Amino acid sequence: MTVATDMLRTTPAEIGYDADDLAACITACFDCAQACTACADACLGEEMVAELRRCITGDLNCADLCVATGRILSRQTAYDATLSRAALEACRDACRTCAEECEQHASMHEHCRICAEACRRCERACEALLSD
Amino acid sequence: MTVATDMLRTTPAEIGYDADDLAACITACFDCAQACTACADACLGEEMVAELRRCITGDLNCADLCVATGRILSRQTAYDATLSRAALEACRDACRTCAEECEQHASMHEHCRICAEACRRCERACEALLSD
Amino acid sequence: MTVATDMLRTTPAEIGYDADDLAACITACFDCAQACTACADACLGEEMVAELRRCITGDLNCADLCVATGRILSRQTAYDATLSRAALEACRDACRTCAEECEQHASMHEHCRICAEACRRCERACEALLSD
Amino acid sequence: MTVATDMLRTTPAEIGYDADDLAACITACFDCAQACTACADACLGEEMVAELRRCITGDLNCADLCVATGRILSRQTAYDATLSRAALEACRDACRTCAEECEQHASMHEHCRICAEACRRCERACEALLSD
Repeated sequence: MTVATDMLRTTPAEIGYDADDLAACITACFDCAQACTACADACLGEEMVAELRRCITGDLNCADLCVATGRILSRQTAYDATLSRAALEACRDACRTCAEECEQHASMHEHCRICAEACRRCERACEALLSD
Repeated sequence: MTVATDMLRTTPAEIGYDADDLAACITACFDCAQACTACADACLGEEMVAELRRCITGDLNCADLCVATGRILSRQTAYDATLSRAALEACRDACRTCAEECEQHASMHEHCRICAEACRRCERACEALLSD
Repeated sequence: MTVATDMLRTTPAEIGYDADDLAACITACFDCAQACTACADACLGEEMVAELRRCITGDLNCADLCVATGRILSRQTAYDATLSRAALEACRDACRTCAEECEQHASMHEHCRICAEACRRCERACEALLSD
Repeated sequence: MTVATDMLRTTPAEIGYDADDLAACITACFDCAQACTACADACLGEEMVAELRRCITGDLNCADLCVATGRILSRQTAYDATLSRAALEACRDACRTCAEECEQHASMHEHCRICAEACRRCERACEALLSD
């Protein structure tokens, strides 16, 4: 049970998705935004920062799309199916890209391993909504 | 000439787009984010706010995607073509949806007319990059 | 245990706060951003939306400051005490303002009651870091 | 004349500041958010990235506070003087911190020089509103 579950339970809006899937995706978006922001910062602090440029950029892009998508999905009044789908697709792509990059140095950097897991959870949660 | 033009001129990164088109799109994204945030607030202040719910939600969603896309496009180090395309498509869709809604009451609410223009400029700027 | 706890445990940066307090505050910021975004949307969907203008604006402002502060606190490489303090103070003020407004119609709107609780948790978490 | 000027001219809300100062500050916030996002990316692309960690973090923090403050100032319906002040103070601090850091390598990196100018404009615009 997360804050998103409680908020969805109490909105007067009709919900455009399965409520459990939607709550899970909103929560995954905000969690992933946090993990990616922190991973970009941790990568920046590593001695080998020059080799982590692609990871840092992927983190920052993913964090931005996760915040935007988590906010858009939190708005179910005047829900728009086409726009939600486009946001979910962009978010899923950003999560996948970021996870693939982080996984390449997950064995060396624990923060990349944890971030990759958050990205994969969010990618799957976006996919679940896209196939609802 | 905008700040985005100057920043692109001085980055060490190779730019993944025509530089003028890219600067125009980044600027349009940030302008549109401002216009949509202000239009949501102006709609909220109107007496007929209950009839403007769809407009307010469209504004808020569009503002979020414009900020995310403007930031992603501002990152050209480790540029990712697939991700940029997905963000541009979502942003273009949000701008079009928001413009269509705002245009319906542009004759009654001047802020909706100005916001719709900002959305259409951003929609066209995203299209220009998508077809580069 | 949240994602923020794991990310802080694995960063190479020295942390400018008590690690548990910091993880709690980061998590509270992102939770509060979600609750406020959803509460603004739920208020917008209520029949009495015209009486909820102050609540909606407070929600939107609080969500924006919570996202910014949650991200700033997630960056501990090159941590800046003055800036963190200013962000925490603004975030605490936004949470208090939003909680006070939501509490006024908590008995009528369950989403306002839940949002007020998220705001109070975040307000206290900011206070805890400010007095560390 | 910017989009912010037009939007303020057409809002039904009473404006809590001098309208020209407010439009200038909103515009400066969004411009500075763009410049800082791009400067963080440009710094990341420099060979000497390891020496630019403090600059990159300052850029990212400043961008986040500028977006939040630019959005908060764009909301004049149900304007809250205390909250606006706290946001402006945090934004001014972030701009000053980021400008001071960027100015240290402005002679070496043109993007830092341009970013520092955007930060100083935004710092002054925040100060102008704070002393209104």
